[in-house]
Amino acid sequence: MPASFTRRLKFEPARFSDGELILIDQRRLPKKLIYRRCRSVRTVWQSIRQMVVRGAPAIGVAAAYGVLLDAVHKKFTDKAAFLRALKSSCEFLKTARPTAVNLAWAVDRIWNQVSRASANSVEELKVIALEEAQRIHEEDIEMCFSIGRHGKSLIKSGDSVLTYCNAGGLATSGYGTALSPLYEAKRQGKRFHVFACETRPQLQGARLTVWELKKYGIPVTLICDNMMGDLMRRGKISKVITGADRIVRNGDTANKIGTYTAASLASLHGVPFYVAAPSSTFDCRKKTGTQIPIEERSADEVARPFGVAIAPAGTRVYNPAFDVTPHKLITAFITNQGILKPPYSKSLRCL
Amino acid sequence: MPASFTRRLKFEPARFSDGELILIDQRRLPKKLIYRRCRSVRTVWQSIRQMVVRGAPAIGVAAAYGVLLDAVHKKFTDKAAFLRALKSSCEFLKTARPTAVNLAWAVDRIWNQVSRASANSVEELKVIALEEAQRIHEEDIEMCFSIGRHGKSLIKSGDSVLTYCNAGGLATSGYGTALSPLYEAKRQGKRFHVFACETRPQLQGARLTVWELKKYGIPVTLICDNMMGDLMRRGKISKVITGADRIVRNGDTANKIGTYTAASLASLHGVPFYVAAPSSTFDCRKKTGTQIPIEERSADEVARPFGVAIAPAGTRVYNPAFDVTPHKLITAFITNQGILKPPYSKSLRCL
Repeated sequence: MPASFTRRLKFEPARFSDGELILIDQRRLPKKLIYRRCRSVRTVWQSIRQMVVRGAPAIGVAAAYGVLLDAVHKKFTDKAAFLRALKSSCEFLKTARPTAVNLAWAVDRIWNQVSRASANSVEELKVIALEEAQRIHEEDIEMCFSIGRHGKSLIKSGDSVLTYCNAGGLATSGYGTALSPLYEAKRQGKRFHVFACETRPQLQGARLTVWELKKYGIPVTLICDNMMGDLMRRGKISKVITGADRIVRNGDTANKIGTYTAASLASLHGVPFYVAAPSSTFDCRKKTGTQIPIEERSADEVARPFGVAIAPAGTRVYNPAFDVTPHKLITAFITNQGILKPPYSKSLRCL
Repeated sequence: MPASFTRRLKFEPARFSDGELILIDQRRLPKKLIYRRCRSVRTVWQSIRQMVVRGAPAIGVAAAYGVLLDAVHKKFTDKAAFLRALKSSCEFLKTARPTAVNLAWAVDRIWNQVSRASANSVEELKVIALEEAQRIHEEDIEMCFSIGRHGKSLIKSGDSVLTYCNAGGLATSGYGTALSPLYEAKRQGKRFHVFACETRPQLQGARLTVWELKKYGIPVTLICDNMMGDLMRRGKISKVITGADRIVRNGDTANKIGTYTAASLASLHGVPFYVAAPSSTFDCRKKTGTQIPIEERSADEVARPFGVAIAPAGTRVYNPAFDVTPHKLITAFITNQGILKPPYSKSLRCL
């Protein structure tokens, strides 16, 4: 990765070096900045599943490198054996998490590039695979910068912006989707304030968004998720920006559980609600939000945060990781290809 | 307290015995059922402030007994000295928490009863004060039963009821406001399900509501507060019942932070939203919700739950304990005097 490309980044959640995928362990933030070094597809699968790395674009980048690890480190007698191993890694890695489309998208890109290549040797195929992963990585950084360039015009001095979960640098290659327009607006010298929702159960807002907004020098106030309505009623929120895990053809958007609540409240209070996402998050094979698979996660995430039992033993828990926001509640999409406004049946066609 | 009166109760959050106010330490639930014994007004003040006892009606009962403790345990040379001490306890105790009207209401009732009494001795005044506190306590139990009797008709078999925070037995003398109709409906043999919102930052829903619903044998599922919208959109919630900390003349209602978010979502999804409260929670001296003082609590409640730092050190936090739900979002009030429907300018006059 050329240094010129990454110098605007304050940190790199996923990078590849000397045959290793090096991930910031996001579960340990904000207390400690610790890296997990992955040398096998199994470790990457676990890292995605356990949310060492999370956020749709960051999962995509991690998966692109991750899928190569077994193939890179093993020796193969012929091309067919290499392709079988790679195929197996691809299929396995896709099962780590079901909702974010970027995981399958990145894995498929590697597979398509390699399986269609007319290379002669296994070594050549390995180079092709690694180059494709690097391309996905570079494109992700560039996409984030583009989202920021397009979105910064929406941020005005004096704004009070609500953001949900973490759709920042940590959810991508370092610059973010929802937070990228804020970083660009800050570079323009605009002054504004951010309210970060803590985002139960995993508290990505409290742990990650606050941490990185501080790194980028943007004033931030932490709230519990249930305070959104009160703040909007008091006129304290001028716009909402969130990320997305999957956007389908009509504009319906899957994102962290609670996003729909934020969008509903924004709509009720006449507050613009923006979704920022790169084109890789758009899934044009699905027509409406009802077709998006929603991952349900363990009861312990809710009932035993930090190992502390907050509910009686054996309590039944509902813990979907995502919800779907209908397109009607979304004021615009901020993408790397520009700002897309309704009607989405037309504006999303270009992606 | 006659046993016949309390036999329907599975626990007593506040009771007075041998010159002591004995409180369930609600901060320790659901892990441990521990009692705190209070022998001074200062201990009661701390218990209310630190939320050993919480919930508007329970605070009222604790305050009624609490205000007597110094006066009961000390010796006084004359009536004037006794009244000065009692007055001082009254003024002090009212400063423990500002939003719930029941605190000042209970303290004022004791003071008015004692200060207007034509008793001859200090001992007689002590008896008058204790009898008034017992009356407040008995009335609270009776009020809760009445709320249940009136409210049970609203609960149908097959219902899926969302409740917020804890407006149950633990928030009162043992039977609850919002949960009382559920307990009565259960006694009628109706079958229904409850979703309990965990209620950040203090998690009264997870810790207390789940605990007591299990005690009363009602099936319950715990959710994070940000899941309300998703559940309603999926048609999984047939009604919402919450308690209240203060209801003013036009029906605007202060309750645990997040209640307004629940009410907004209910309104948006056509789900009936009920507020259950005894007549002592109605404050007819205030016209609209804007006049209700809202307590802001410490940043650590949000940023350091259970002593675990979930956000970087020094993070700015907004932590209001309550929000105000405009009367327009409230389908009806379930009170000890019956179900009150809009227009509240008329129906609330009787209280």
